[in-house]
Amino acid sequence: MQIAIVLFDRFTSLDAVGPYEMLARTPGAETVFVAERTGPVRNDNGSLALVADKTFADVPAPDVIVVPGGPGQSDQMENETLLDWLRTADATSTWTASVCTGSLLLAAAGLLKGRRATSHWLALDILKGFGTDATGERVVLDGKYVTAAGVSSGIDMGLTLLGRIADDEHAMAVQLLTEYDPQPPYDAGSPAKAPAALVEEFRTKSRFILEQ
Amino acid sequence: MQIAIVLFDRFTSLDAVGPYEMLARTPGAETVFVAERTGPVRNDNGSLALVADKTFADVPAPDVIVVPGGPGQSDQMENETLLDWLRTADATSTWTASVCTGSLLLAAAGLLKGRRATSHWLALDILKGFGTDATGERVVLDGKYVTAAGVSSGIDMGLTLLGRIADDEHAMAVQLLTEYDPQPPYDAGSPAKAPAALVEEFRTKSRFILEQ
Repeated sequence: MQIAIVLFDRFTSLDAVGPYEMLARTPGAETVFVAERTGPVRNDNGSLALVADKTFADVPAPDVIVVPGGPGQSDQMENETLLDWLRTADATSTWTASVCTGSLLLAAAGLLKGRRATSHWLALDILKGFGTDATGERVVLDGKYVTAAGVSSGIDMGLTLLGRIADDEHAMAVQLLTEYDPQPPYDAGSPAKAPAALVEEFRTKSRFILEQ
Repeated sequence: MQIAIVLFDRFTSLDAVGPYEMLARTPGAETVFVAERTGPVRNDNGSLALVADKTFADVPAPDVIVVPGGPGQSDQMENETLLDWLRTADATSTWTASVCTGSLLLAAAGLLKGRRATSHWLALDILKGFGTDATGERVVLDGKYVTAAGVSSGIDMGLTLLGRIADDEHAMAVQLLTEYDPQPPYDAGSPAKAPAALVEEFRTKSRFILEQ
């Protein structure tokens, strides 16, 4: 079994590493970071670089595809090299997954039309624009498509997917080993829970960015 | 403000990237990955490499130090280059933090003697051996020392520390932006919650590894 995690300039690191940490512990699986070119790929902040060990051409038919998001996603929406690879790899994948705005790339490749899917809470309207039934849920499964909401939700997605690929017992063992018993010091992790002024501030900023 | 995250061979990626994703969003801060040598550093699984942009010598006096853990930690316990850097950097740091077995490296450097601290649940006994008051808590603050339990707890630690460095409002904004509203599909993330047989299995394996 081969698990491919996609990298592109200005991805969000936890989008990729959250599900990686869960899925790399799949028994008998090889996990590989893929990008257009091999070598270091810088994240949105510029201070982190993850190495892509393989090019898209090197990994034509992975069993599992994971696409992270991040500010750099918008530059990839018309990158036919990436979109073509997603379409081809998806044709034979067992699972096709995304985190955050990675679902917009799956949608741009035409893979989420008519499906239920999720994305970062600020990107749900854009996802709807692709004919997708965009829900605000944290992890959405529709057939072999598994999408996660913003950034940290990729951990929940990865653990959910690991349970399907291996079994519940193995997934629980990985949860215990990674001590995934979250205790956030605040309760502001979703637009329904965060202070309304903060939510509005982000919505305004986000509209401004989209209008540029 | 400079935040230094330490890398070494066979570190656990989420130990480093969890707090990174929170702390890199500190206003006005530069975050940098440091190691003995610059260049890619491979994780415990071998399939992920994060780039160290600076050597320890390049970053002599960071304001915040974050030390991840992972299976490779045991090879570093007598690495005087790392331990000396930790002691020197700690002498002027505002915060010294660890995730998982990273606290064993802080302890080996002599920084946690007589302090309250935590570590991966399988490493608490070893931490006690350094004269540390090892608690099973997820995030422990004792003066400027902030230690986190296993792997994923680094996210809670990072967000807690961000709240102290910036303020609660900024930390909540980062929690909302990274949609950190965890919903694990299982409830097996701590030895108190996981099936007893699984906990015992890991304890036995862990004793076996320590005896080798």
